[in-house]
This record gives sequence, structure tokens and C-alpha cells, in this order.
Amino acid sequence: MRVYDIKSPADIKNMSIEELNILCEDIRKFLIDSISKTGGHLSSNLGVVELTVALHYVFNAPKDKIIFDVGHQCYTHKILTGRSPYFSTLRKKDGLSGFQKRNESEYDCWEAGHSSTSLSAALGFACARDLQKQDYEIIPVIGDGALCSGMSMEALNDIGTQQKKIIIIFNDNNMSISKNHSVIEQKITDLRTSHFYQTMKSDVKKNLKDSYLGASLLKSMTNLRDHIRDEMINAPLFENFNINYMGPVDGHDLHTLIKTFQAAKNSDGPIVIHVVTKKGKGYSYAEEDEIGKWHGVSPFDVTTGHSLMRTPKDELTWSEIISRTLVDLARQDKKIVAITPAMANGSKLLEFQKKYPDRFFDCGIAEDHAITMASAMAQAGLKPFVSIYSSFLQRAYDQINHDMARMNLPVVVGVDRAGLVGDDGETHQGVFDISFLRSIPNVILSQPKDACEAQNLVYSAFIEKKPYFIRYPRGYEKYQKVKEYEYIKPGTWTTYTVGNNPECIVICYGPEVDKVIEKATINDISMIVVNARFFKPIDTECLDKLFKTNLKIHIYETDCKIGSLSSAILEYHNKEFDILGIEDHFVPQGSIRSLRIEENIHINALFEHISEDSNETR
Amino acid sequence: MRVYDIKSPADIKNMSIEELNILCEDIRKFLIDSISKTGGHLSSNLGVVELTVALHYVFNAPKDKIIFDVGHQCYTHKILTGRSPYFSTLRKKDGLSGFQKRNESEYDCWEAGHSSTSLSAALGFACARDLQKQDYEIIPVIGDGALCSGMSMEALNDIGTQQKKIIIIFNDNNMSISKNHSVIEQKITDLRTSHFYQTMKSDVKKNLKDSYLGASLLKSMTNLRDHIRDEMINAPLFENFNINYMGPVDGHDLHTLIKTFQAAKNSDGPIVIHVVTKKGKGYSYAEEDEIGKWHGVSPFDVTTGHSLMRTPKDELTWSEIISRTLVDLARQDKKIVAITPAMANGSKLLEFQKKYPDRFFDCGIAEDHAITMASAMAQAGLKPFVSIYSSFLQRAYDQINHDMARMNLPVVVGVDRAGLVGDDGETHQGVFDISFLRSIPNVILSQPKDACEAQNLVYSAFIEKKPYFIRYPRGYEKYQKVKEYEYIKPGTWTTYTVGNNPECIVICYGPEVDKVIEKATINDISMIVVNARFFKPIDTECLDKLFKTNLKIHIYETDCKIGSLSSAILEYHNKEFDILGIEDHFVPQGSIRSLRIEENIHINALFEHISEDSNETR
Repeated sequence: MRVYDIKSPADIKNMSIEELNILCEDIRKFLIDSISKTGGHLSSNLGVVELTVALHYVFNAPKDKIIFDVGHQCYTHKILTGRSPYFSTLRKKDGLSGFQKRNESEYDCWEAGHSSTSLSAALGFACARDLQKQDYEIIPVIGDGALCSGMSMEALNDIGTQQKKIIIIFNDNNMSISKNHSVIEQKITDLRTSHFYQTMKSDVKKNLKDSYLGASLLKSMTNLRDHIRDEMINAPLFENFNINYMGPVDGHDLHTLIKTFQAAKNSDGPIVIHVVTKKGKGYSYAEEDEIGKWHGVSPFDVTTGHSLMRTPKDELTWSEIISRTLVDLARQDKKIVAITPAMANGSKLLEFQKKYPDRFFDCGIAEDHAITMASAMAQAGLKPFVSIYSSFLQRAYDQINHDMARMNLPVVVGVDRAGLVGDDGETHQGVFDISFLRSIPNVILSQPKDACEAQNLVYSAFIEKKPYFIRYPRGYEKYQKVKEYEYIKPGTWTTYTVGNNPECIVICYGPEVDKVIEKATINDISMIVVNARFFKPIDTECLDKLFKTNLKIHIYETDCKIGSLSSAILEYHNKEFDILGIEDHFVPQGSIRSLRIEENIHINALFEHISEDSNETR
Repeated sequence: MRVYDIKSPADIKNMSIEELNILCEDIRKFLIDSISKTGGHLSSNLGVVELTVALHYVFNAPKDKIIFDVGHQCYTHKILTGRSPYFSTLRKKDGLSGFQKRNESEYDCWEAGHSSTSLSAALGFACARDLQKQDYEIIPVIGDGALCSGMSMEALNDIGTQQKKIIIIFNDNNMSISKNHSVIEQKITDLRTSHFYQTMKSDVKKNLKDSYLGASLLKSMTNLRDHIRDEMINAPLFENFNINYMGPVDGHDLHTLIKTFQAAKNSDGPIVIHVVTKKGKGYSYAEEDEIGKWHGVSPFDVTTGHSLMRTPKDELTWSEIISRTLVDLARQDKKIVAITPAMANGSKLLEFQKKYPDRFFDCGIAEDHAITMASAMAQAGLKPFVSIYSSFLQRAYDQINHDMARMNLPVVVGVDRAGLVGDDGETHQGVFDISFLRSIPNVILSQPKDACEAQNLVYSAFIEKKPYFIRYPRGYEKYQKVKEYEYIKPGTWTTYTVGNNPECIVICYGPEVDKVIEKATINDISMIVVNARFFKPIDTECLDKLFKTNLKIHIYETDCKIGSLSSAILEYHNKEFDILGIEDHFVPQGSIRSLRIEENIHINALFEHISEDSNETR
């Protein structure tokens, strides 16, 4: 049976190990071939082929719930659930999603895109199952990077407390997106490489020969576990959480995987199965990748491994433009440090890391921790730059508000992948940051129109001594290093007049500015084009002048409309409504009554407004 | 030397243990007396008197940085740093803050209010210190509840990785705000109650008699630690993070505390000192408190322990109104479950817990995990209600957006303490939730004007099958149980006409609605008062009618203005500007180009708008 023949997991239930192994090879070839044409997540999917086959062999989806953390490693799951015919549409508009999607298949019971939600989800399912007296297995599959994130540890703590039956597959490939060197990763490595791993492997194999009973295997495993615990210097992480542990098992050995999963079914309460896999398995370029460049790929030549995307001449990615500037500024200013939550490669910070290793901090998948740590660094005299994708910045909303902005600390945040990001879909579109950042006091929020402005904004941000966000999109931009940095004052927009007799005004931002100017010029349409390079503060002086022209104003936004730039302009422009509310600052302590008076949001203030107003109209 | 005589920590440096003990008793009396008059955080402060005295005795603040997690337990720190004269102004307008505040004293190097930021901050300080080749100690003081939160574990992981010198004081009182029963707490309890604790205590005391050298003590401690590790079934949490550990030590034994802290100074890298304290120590009512009602208190009679606040007759707190409704609805509907991130008492969920223990989930200080777990419960067929304070909801922004709203899952969230909360100040004001929730697609966001509407909104929320937020303020409201629940359709406002000839319109929400009606009636001012009980969706039909009246509209908000209700109205009312942007939905996958076309945010769309517009005006 070949890849395209598989309609549902039922098709593999009666296969022999040998047949399954052949299928795995087929799937691997299919994945490499297919992803080389469409692009997508390669390494992680090649790593979990046998693991996924074994899961579907042992468990009964969709009754049993298989939840992939993040979800980008679910391609084999899609193949086994009858979706191989659609792989040519992967990540395309109306095509197959790169993640689990409930509307795509009944086998997808949960959706993600961001990391470390699977254990919380699994516990939610388990509570619901037990309360409703239902009977099914719940199998979250989570990688080592995602497991080290705080939310996962909260979930582990809660799972260990509630002791509900959950079979946690810990997919250990010693690499989240780029290699993670944290202490917990090190513990896992200790465990993985300990000589007990070897002992266990042979013991497990021996046991598999002796007995077909999973329960017996489990017993043997438990003995092994005690054995490990007795001899190991460092007990595994999971014991602290009162969660049973089996492993490590070879993630590419189908026989062992299947027997282990069968054994786990018989276990009570939560259990972690530690599966060691090799990311990129079966494709040498991906296997050898140390920095994560084969994590998500664009179409490539299978033989050479070269990308088929043409890199535009004289252009760099926005991430690269920002990070080159950072490297340049850091050369002169030793106080500049860079922080990334596990995205050194994506955010193009590898050069910074190489040049200034002692000033580079990869804190793992922990955006919240990253922002608060950076805030303290600023308080203690450094000049931190934190690079986070817009969509992941959502994880640090409270730390931005409560720590960085409330204490008004000079941290510069590079909001990467802002705006629509495309293929990754709903979970990754970076379209909310303007809305959620704009209402936080003290914040400066900007977006450059081109590489020159980008460099000057980074330079200016370090001068400003405020929480300073610079957002920039996915994609390429023409780049030339500026000869000398120019200071840009926060809240200043620039205007460009096309033609001699402007007929309208376009307010826009980012790379759209020059495109609008160009198109207006080519089409000979006279207009004023405004580069609204600050969303907060906005340029009220500029707006006043624009309003005076009485020209029609088009606000051209490329992010979510609600609460965004146009809302800022509407709020400023408002003459029609009388609005009482808390102004743009943090409100200190006091009785609610006294604060209301201070903030002018009390009923007497309202009635004063009303009476003033009625006097005026009379 | 008495409490009022202390101007700075220098004043205690030469005291004998006996004198320090007398001082501690004085401080305790002062705290009880002072807090009984002003209200404030009692239990946690009584618990750390000796701990704080020992810290200031051993360390040299402000050069050394003492960082209190959350910060509500820093009253003794304030006394020792010369702020006792201001305790009568505690938590009052322009008075002493209940937390550390940088503008209040050079001894306050960091600020908090939300939990679990101190370890990230400590690491930020440590990185800055070492890079700048400075020399000072960093001493975060963190409780057991805060330590179990994900952000703390991320920080521990990073601290263990970086191995920078930080002296972590783990203040273990086996109670965060209310008693926490999580598995990690259990591990800590195991450690605390193990017989090694007793052994260690006597060993330490013996050692203290034998030697005055901290280094020797540390050595003894290290031996003890090895001893513990050899014999204990469960190694302490911290070893997994590669962080040295000393303890547990008696948090009320000044002699031991001082010697232990001195020893810790000589340690390299990060070290945790496990200090066991008794919350409420020295005040019997607080000592016996199991549910956290002596955590934050209003003025009380010291002798009887009775609150001096009059509970208004026939009134309940908003939290109580909501939770009574929940209890009532849950009686009929077995699918209703309640989830709290460690705020069972504050959110008034104790009754629910008592009545339906199997449907009640306290997941510890983990708002993010709570929201995602609740989302999965909803996906799996339950009807979850999550109660979270507005200000703490900020911690779950991404989980609301990425999990709950994106999957459009029917979770009901009670946004407690919405609006100004008063005494706790900047860190606790719940004024941002309207702004940050309003731009998230699928969300319903409401606030009742009175207890009747509150009950009907909770009832309606469970019918709606959408992510449904009900916000309500701190404070009391007249309560009567509704005879029969009435369904309220999302996005419907109600209007009240005062007098016969309305001269203006007031759009407001929450308890202000009836106050405005009352005042208008008393003062004989004819107006239309609008109960904008939904912030999202807003009632556009109602607005259209209001606009037609041509009456002046006053929008009376009691939260932050930016991005809030008035912005929603301005966005809807806009006729002046032509706005392109992404509409209120999650944008699926596709090439950026194709998505731009789909969303109508591309340059051709803009120019079509421009040309249509210029045709119209001609």
C-alpha cells in the first residue's frame, strides 16, 4: 500500500511491521518530494514519520484525540487520515493547512500554531471526558522546545495534580526551532545519552521477544525506571510533576514504539513517553542542520538542497535589515544587548550572536520572560533589543503592559513578521499588535517605510529612553547602509506631494508608502501621500494641516481595522461626540471615588459637560 | 530602637539578635495596628518580618537589589528603609504604595503587582551587572504560589542555564493567596515535612555554635544537601534547574536566617534558600486562615478580627452576584464547570467548589493555562466559566486570541475587578480589557448595569456558544435573585428616556447607567440614557436611531479611552474618511498577495476607491 492509497488509519491497522516500515519510507519520500515543490515544514515532519504511524496504528482516532503541539509536524497524520491527495495545495489559499484544522478533518480535534498549548488542551479534554463518563485516550505530542515553555510547565503541574489519564508523547529531537541549550534541555540530553538508555533499549527489545503483553512490558519499563532513578544523578523532570515516565525509546524503531504505546494504554493516570527522534531524518541536508534553516522551507531542489526562490538583487529581508543595524550600533555601544525567544535564525540574529556572544541571550520559547528580563536589564543600565514575531508578541502582552510600559523602561522591541504573513494562516498573521499596543501608556509604536528609515528608527529608538516598538513585515526590501544615522522624532509623519494639484490624501505606512507614491506618479494622479510611520504617538500637527486642506482622506491600513491607525485618527479628529474616559496614562492608587474625580470620569463631571454643552447651544 | 526610629537599614546593622528579635515584635505590632486602620495586605507581611530584617541585616541595599515578587509583602522592607511614618497613608491617594515603587525610595529597584516577575527581573539585573562588571547581590523573594507559575519556571530554567549569581529567597508558606494543592506544592511540602528538615535544623544550629564562618556553614549545608539527595525519594524542584539549594530554614529564627544568608553570599552562581514562614504569624485570626481572607483586608477591629467596613444592606459584591448565578445555573446544567487561577476566594467561587467539587478547577497562578484548558473543555462538550480579574486577564491575551477566539469556542469568562480598582494602584487597574479584547474576532464583550442584568447575561452567555466575556467592577450592588432568567441578545443596547423632551444623549455602561438616570431625573434634565451593555458587538441599529435625533451625544466611559467603546462608536460613525483595512475576522492562509486581494487591502483597491471617490465628487 502506497501513500496515495491510504484513506484512513484503518488501512494500516493490519499491516506488519515490515509493511509499515516500507510505508514510512514512502511517506518520507512523499514528504520530501511534496514539500520541495510547495514549501512547508520539513525537518520536524521527517522526524515524526514512524512516531505518527505508530500512534495511528495503536490508537483509534478520531475517537482517541491526537493533539500535535504547534501542529506543524502533523503532515504524516494528514497523510494517514486520507489527505495526501491535497498536499499540492499545502499552505496555499483554500488549500491544505500546515497545521491541524478542525474544519479539514474529523481527525483534527484541536488547532494550534503557537507553541506549548497541547498539554493544557489535553487536560481540558481529560476533564471533559471524565466528567461526561466517556472513554477515549488523549495523546498530546510535544517537542522539547515547547515543553520548556512556562505554559507547558503549568499544565504539567496541573496534570500531575489531577492525575487524569493522558498519554504525553515527548518528542525529543534536541532542537526546538533552533538548538536550545537551556538547563532543562541539558537534563533531557543527560537522560537521553545516559548509559541507561542503552540498557533500556536492549532490555526492551529482549522483553518484546519474550512477551506480547503490553502490561508485562510496562512492568519491565517500570522496573527499568526504578533502575534509572536509583542510579541516575539527575532524576527526570517529569518525576517532579508526579507523572509516570517511560523511555527513552528510539523514535524510528516502529516495533518498540508500537509496543510502548500499547503498554501506555494500560497505564493509569498521566504518563510521559520519551521518544527520541532525529529532526530531518532521511534527508541529509536537513539532518545536518544545526540552526533550523530546514525548519520551514520554501520550494527547493531535492538533489542540491538549494532554494528555488530567487533572492531579489540588492534586497534583504526586513529582519536582516534590522539586525544588521543592530550589529552596527552594538559595535559602538557596548550597552546594547539582543534577546530572542528561540528565534535566533528567524530573526536573523545569528550574526549578532557570533560577534557579541556575551551580549546575546536566547531564553527559549518564553516571550513573557524575555520582555520582563529585558525590562530589568534596561532598569539596570543596559540597552536591550528584543526581537519577537508580532503574533508571538501576544504572549507577552501583560509583561509589556505591567513591566516594560508601566515602569516606562527603555527596551527596544523589534516586532518581526508584522502584518499578513501568508502561508502559516490564522495563527501567525501579525495583524493585532497595533490594536493591542496602542492603548498601553508610554509606548512608542512605529513602522519604517523603507530600509533607510528602518535603520534610522533603530538608531533613534536607542536614544529615546522609552518602550519603543518597531514593526516590520515578512519579506524583502531594497537595502543600502545609511552613511550616517538620522534621528527621527517620535510622532513625526512625513508627507509627499505627487503632482501639483492634489485631489486627495492617502495616509498609509510601511512599504505601501512608496508603492502608493509610485503608482500615483505613473498614473499622473495628484495627491498627498502620508507616511504614518508612528501609530503612537500620531502626528497631530500633520493631521491638523491635512484636515485644513478639506481633501478627501483615504486611510490605507494593512492590519486589522478595529482599534488601529484609523481609530487613532478618528479619536483625534472627533468633534461630534463629547467623550469622558481615562486618558493615556497609568492610573495610580487611591480610593475609586478620588481616582474618578482625578480622572474626570464621575457623574458630576458628566453633568457639567452636559450643562456646558446646553449653554453653548442656547 | 523602635519602629519609628528606623531611618535606614544602617540602623539595624549593629543590633544583637536579641535586639533584632524585639524589633521584629515591634514591627509585628506596628503592622497589625497600622493595617487594622488603613487596610492592606496583612498575612503575607506578618509572615516575612524576620526574613526581611535578616535580609537587610546581611545585605547592603540599595547597592544590593532586593526584589519582592508581587511586592505586597514589602511592608517590613518599607519600615526598615525609613518609611514607617507614612503608613497611615498606605494605599491612599498620593500615599505610600502597597508595593515596591521606584519613585518612593532608592531601596525599591523594581516594581510589580502581578505575580512571578521577580526571577526574570533578577536575571535581567544579573546580566546587566556582570556585563557592566559591577559588584552587587541580587535577591529576589518569591512565594510558593508565584514560583509555580510558568513565567517563574521559564526564569528558573534560564537562571540555571546562565549560572549567574542570584540569591533566590524561596518564601514557602504553603499558601499563595488561597491554599494551593498542586503537585509541585506537594513536593515542597514533602521536603518541608521530611525528617531531614529536623536533622538539618539541629545540624545547622550545632554548626552555628561551632563556627562563625559562613563558608563553613555553607559547607555543612552542602553536605546536608547531599545527605538529603541521597536519602530523599523526591529531589527538590530546583535541582532540575541546576540551581543550588539550601534549606529548609525556619523563617522566624533570625539567627539561622542571618547565618544562612551570610553563607549564601559566598556561594557561586544561583542559589535557592528555602525559608519556611507562617503566613499571618503573630496574629491568631490570620494564622488560622485557610482560604486567604486575611490576605488583603479592609480596616478591622484588632481584638475581634471583625471588619469595620459596613456591608451595605441588600447588597452583594459583583463577584458574589455572578458566582451565585453560576451556582444556580450549574445546579440544572451538569456541563457547567468553573475554573479559577488561584482566586477561589477573591472570585467568590468557594460556594461553587463546595457544591460541585468535581466541576471546580483551581489551576494555580496560571491564567494562560486556564484559558486554553477551558477552551479544550468547551471543544470537548463542557460549558466552562473562567473567572479572572481584568488586570490578570492580560496574562492570557494570546490564549484568548489564539485558542479561544480563533477556534470560536464557547467559554464564558467573568472579567472581575474591571475598571478602576483603587488602592492597589497602577498594576491592578482593570481598564485595558475593553481595548485589548475588542479587536479580537468572534468575541462577545459585555457589562451588566445591575444585578438583574448580570444574572441574565450569565444565563445568556451559556446559550450563545461563542467566546463570551462579562466584565464587572469591584464593589457592591443591590441584589435580588431573578424569578426567571431572560435571554439577552448580543449587541443589544437599551435606552431610557428621562423627561419628555430629550436635550441630549448619554451613552454609558455598568452601574453608571442607573446613576445617570437617577441624577437626570432628580435634576429634571430631559435626556436619552443608553445602556451600552455590549462593547462588542455594538448596537448599530440603536446608534442609527440615536444619530438621527441630531442630539448631542455624550459618551461616558470609565475605562481607558484609547480603543474603547467611544472608538467603536467613532469607527462605526465614520463617514469622513475612506478606510481600508482587515475586517473583523481571522485571516486564513494563502500567499500574502492573494490574501491582500481577498481582504481588499492592496494598492489597486486603494486606487479604485480613489477614482470612485473622485468620480462621485465631480
